[in-house]
Amino acid sequence: MIGRLNHVAIAVKDLEASAKVYRDTLGATLSAPLPQPEHGVTVIFVELPNSKIELLEPLGADSPINAFLERNPGGGIHHVCYEVDDILAARDKLKAQGARILGTGEPRIGAHGKPVLFLHPKDFLGTLVELEQA
Amino acid sequence: MIGRLNHVAIAVKDLEASAKVYRDTLGATLSAPLPQPEHGVTVIFVELPNSKIELLEPLGADSPINAFLERNPGGGIHHVCYEVDDILAARDKLKAQGARILGTGEPRIGAHGKPVLFLHPKDFLGTLVELEQA
Repeated sequence: MIGRLNHVAIAVKDLEASAKVYRDTLGATLSAPLPQPEHGVTVIFVELPNSKIELLEPLGADSPINAFLERNPGGGIHHVCYEVDDILAARDKLKAQGARILGTGEPRIGAHGKPVLFLHPKDFLGTLVELEQA
Repeated sequence: MIGRLNHVAIAVKDLEASAKVYRDTLGATLSAPLPQPEHGVTVIFVELPNSKIELLEPLGADSPINAFLERNPGGGIHHVCYEVDDILAARDKLKAQGARILGTGEPRIGAHGKPVLFLHPKDFLGTLVELEQA
């Protein structure tokens, strides 16, 4: 069911300082910062040849990554995102197997303009998993 | 400097139960378990079209992932691995910029039979970074 590893997301407190680590120290190519007020984050993508790292900084007091950064003030890996061909079919198959879908259970439009869902970390080896329609 | 995202490693207590989540629930293709006594882990690779997930179970009392699993008993993302063309040149460039290399600072042979190094999480956004010679 799951296809490509679309991205690995790293939550950080200071997006510009973090971008500098990937751009200057690790020598990677980065996108411009992209504020996503509807998701409560500002995003920079680190473009790797086969996948992406998504650097996430909180945007607004209700950012969904605030609690994570309180627990991990130095930053850390927040989630992994896998592509699926049909997000509604994937959701229904996962639910039928007892996996928990976060939020309303209905896909939202994610950072790439495509429908996404998040799966409960306790059902997936302690990792928050995002599914994105390919 | 960094190239492909070679893999994302997830540390788990029970490799077979974790493999079942990726194989049966998420429908991915998995390798057979590969014990690596010299690294203190048994590994299963989840083969995705563009990258891999490395499931790690402790092997032996001195496994380097024991402490992580004490802090994260349900499992969790342990590190990300980026490929570099020349691991010694990469190491020297990183050291010159003040980044800390773990262990002796000399590459060891990793899970793919290639030289690897680990970088200090505090220098890389709270994430443990493995570099692997491409």
